[in-house]
Amino acid sequence: MIKLFYAADTCSLASHIALEDAAAEYSTVRISFAADEQHQPEYLAVNPKGRVPALVTDRGILTETPAMLAYIAQSFPRARLAPLDDAFRFAQLQAFNSYLCSTLHVAHAHRMRGNRWADEPAAIEAMQRKVPASVGSCYQLIESKMLRGPWVMGDSYTICDPYLFTLAQWLEGDGVDPLRFPKVRDHRRRMAERPAVQKAIAAELA
Amino acid sequence: MIKLFYAADTCSLASHIALEDAAAEYSTVRISFAADEQHQPEYLAVNPKGRVPALVTDRGILTETPAMLAYIAQSFPRARLAPLDDAFRFAQLQAFNSYLCSTLHVAHAHRMRGNRWADEPAAIEAMQRKVPASVGSCYQLIESKMLRGPWVMGDSYTICDPYLFTLAQWLEGDGVDPLRFPKVRDHRRRMAERPAVQKAIAAELA
Repeated sequence: MIKLFYAADTCSLASHIALEDAAAEYSTVRISFAADEQHQPEYLAVNPKGRVPALVTDRGILTETPAMLAYIAQSFPRARLAPLDDAFRFAQLQAFNSYLCSTLHVAHAHRMRGNRWADEPAAIEAMQRKVPASVGSCYQLIESKMLRGPWVMGDSYTICDPYLFTLAQWLEGDGVDPLRFPKVRDHRRRMAERPAVQKAIAAELA
Repeated sequence: MIKLFYAADTCSLASHIALEDAAAEYSTVRISFAADEQHQPEYLAVNPKGRVPALVTDRGILTETPAMLAYIAQSFPRARLAPLDDAFRFAQLQAFNSYLCSTLHVAHAHRMRGNRWADEPAAIEAMQRKVPASVGSCYQLIESKMLRGPWVMGDSYTICDPYLFTLAQWLEGDGVDPLRFPKVRDHRRRMAERPAVQKAIAAELA
């Protein structure tokens, strides 16, 4: 059975929701960042990167949200979470998720993980000051060019939707006013109404 | 026919090599970063992100290296550039490429693109100072845990290989001694011997 290692308020929620969307049988293991569990030997044996999420399958362990989301979509084709028979549309979906992991999530990470990229406190504070602008410009692009509506890829709900929803939880914390982005806000609201989303969130808060 | 927009000495080389590996019919358009062409209206109409690469297909435009590489593998299955019939192995491949785009390439980008994440010159210099350490720790993980050898995924050459090779061009510039990473170095050497790699590089230098 699939086992998801997650931490609260992280991008692992995207895979958690997708597992619910897929009606997968799975269990979860919570990793406490407060207790630094992600850097302990037990967890490093699961994911040497010391980050979440990680997905334990009967074939081995997978990491990296875009890869895990595509894996869930391909492993549970009946859930129709991706256009699996159309390489171009699948690539459009992957391009969206790749943008989230390499640009939007990275911009956000400069607020609390600046020590990945600089040591001096003043530099880390300078990074934090720019987060509203850098994250905001990502959402400007998502709002104007990428989010088709009602779902990210248009009429079909896909694995892009839980990923965007997960990162959009951080808008206010990043100092970005969601009122600037009505499509993103509407997407977040409709996602929050879905039972799969509510179930995943409730399980992480329990 | 496929058209690749690329810039010299950027991650677009990975897709360029993959198109050669796939024996695809394609043309290329060079974007000059020196002339700031990536931010001109003509190119922003192709890729509103103002970055390379972008792949123009008869179905539309694709961006983001991991998405483009998977698209090339799926569109040219005879080239066997990815395990297309095995969701788990495909996910392992995608996890590697996702790590390159969201962690390794991002660490590298703090050397020359620090203004994406901070405004103050002192902060940008602080980022530059940490690049040898942050990029080096990525390669430590790749060397010890991810690169199976002889190719990234083991015995089969895949779309992970041109991507790693492309980013590994920047080792010395990032202040990381390749001698620390014999498997990465051996991979780079063997990649450089491949005619597809030589052809793509020569075309970009022409």
